[in-house]
Amino acid sequence: MNYPSKVFERAVEEMSQLPGIGKRTALRLVLHMLNRSASKTENLADSLQHLVNDIQYCEKCHTISDAHICNICSNPLRDSSIICVVEDVRDVMAIENTGQYRGVYHVLGGRISPMEGVGPGQLKIESLAQRVQNESISELIFALSSTMEGDTTSFYLYKVLKDSSVQFSTIARGIGVGDELEYADEATLVRSIQNRIPYATEMN
Amino acid sequence: MNYPSKVFERAVEEMSQLPGIGKRTALRLVLHMLNRSASKTENLADSLQHLVNDIQYCEKCHTISDAHICNICSNPLRDSSIICVVEDVRDVMAIENTGQYRGVYHVLGGRISPMEGVGPGQLKIESLAQRVQNESISELIFALSSTMEGDTTSFYLYKVLKDSSVQFSTIARGIGVGDELEYADEATLVRSIQNRIPYATEMN
Repeated sequence: MNYPSKVFERAVEEMSQLPGIGKRTALRLVLHMLNRSASKTENLADSLQHLVNDIQYCEKCHTISDAHICNICSNPLRDSSIICVVEDVRDVMAIENTGQYRGVYHVLGGRISPMEGVGPGQLKIESLAQRVQNESISELIFALSSTMEGDTTSFYLYKVLKDSSVQFSTIARGIGVGDELEYADEATLVRSIQNRIPYATEMN
Repeated sequence: MNYPSKVFERAVEEMSQLPGIGKRTALRLVLHMLNRSASKTENLADSLQHLVNDIQYCEKCHTISDAHICNICSNPLRDSSIICVVEDVRDVMAIENTGQYRGVYHVLGGRISPMEGVGPGQLKIESLAQRVQNESISELIFALSSTMEGDTTSFYLYKVLKDSSVQFSTIARGIGVGDELEYADEATLVRSIQNRIPYATEMN
């Protein structure tokens, strides 16, 4: 590609470093930035600079935060004896959006995946073990992906922590609410039958 | 959406202002930025700041440039008597990539489109008329989109400039090189037959 300007080329190159954004898309985005008011692009640049400089991770649960301890961990109305173990902050946001969970979280920062070179050492497992030991935790809910990596991670955590007095649970796998049975995959269907629950429970 | 951090939320909001990037994609991109080395995101922020502060437009042809006059207009090896009229800088880049055109350009900055509220006044038509009047231009090549708006723009330019001594041409419309006839649309096929050229010319 022949770029008419180095400044322009650099912006396109940097944008195309982002995942899922190729050269063509980057070009389109940068041209859009040139056509809109300069203050908007300044805001974007400024927000990214702040992101790098000011973002913090909660010392307890490792979620993204503006302070040492996040809003959830520092909220006295949350039940700090129940920890929901998730992979990343998107999972926290998804569960928080339901508005139904009153416990706290622990963000592992990924899942065990030998294929991607992620071992237990790269995840926040040690600090989870410390929380289980030092805080009065009654239940750990594994809310990891329903994949081989997610299951491996849950199993690893269980093995590491099983000697503690904490109760372990995992989020239910089954047919999604509103889904039709005939379109469900076999594995999900099998699990939904194996893990069937008393009818009265479901009605609550 | 409940964001765990204001700094994080602002970055996601600003990213999702870009065309074709929704909240979910913005979230994914910002999380990626947090997982990669901070210097990369600083580079991106810096490149966008430079884009806003340092980008210039060539005073002659209005393409994006690092100086008052762009590399193409200031190149003595280019034939400044032939001007190729295009819509935006992407068209300049596409033609430059062929390495076959030795003339110069004029970037209109769009095309006449009443539907999108773009009239002749918003385009760099006045300055094109001045170039035709003041410089020794022999030929204007219209290289605009083959759409109603592109054709309207070409026709408008022709009407404005037809009293000058300049020669007008338009890029050829026809079956693309490597395309099969049976898949060509009717309008293109009709035009390719109407504008047929002597066989010997094509062989050159």
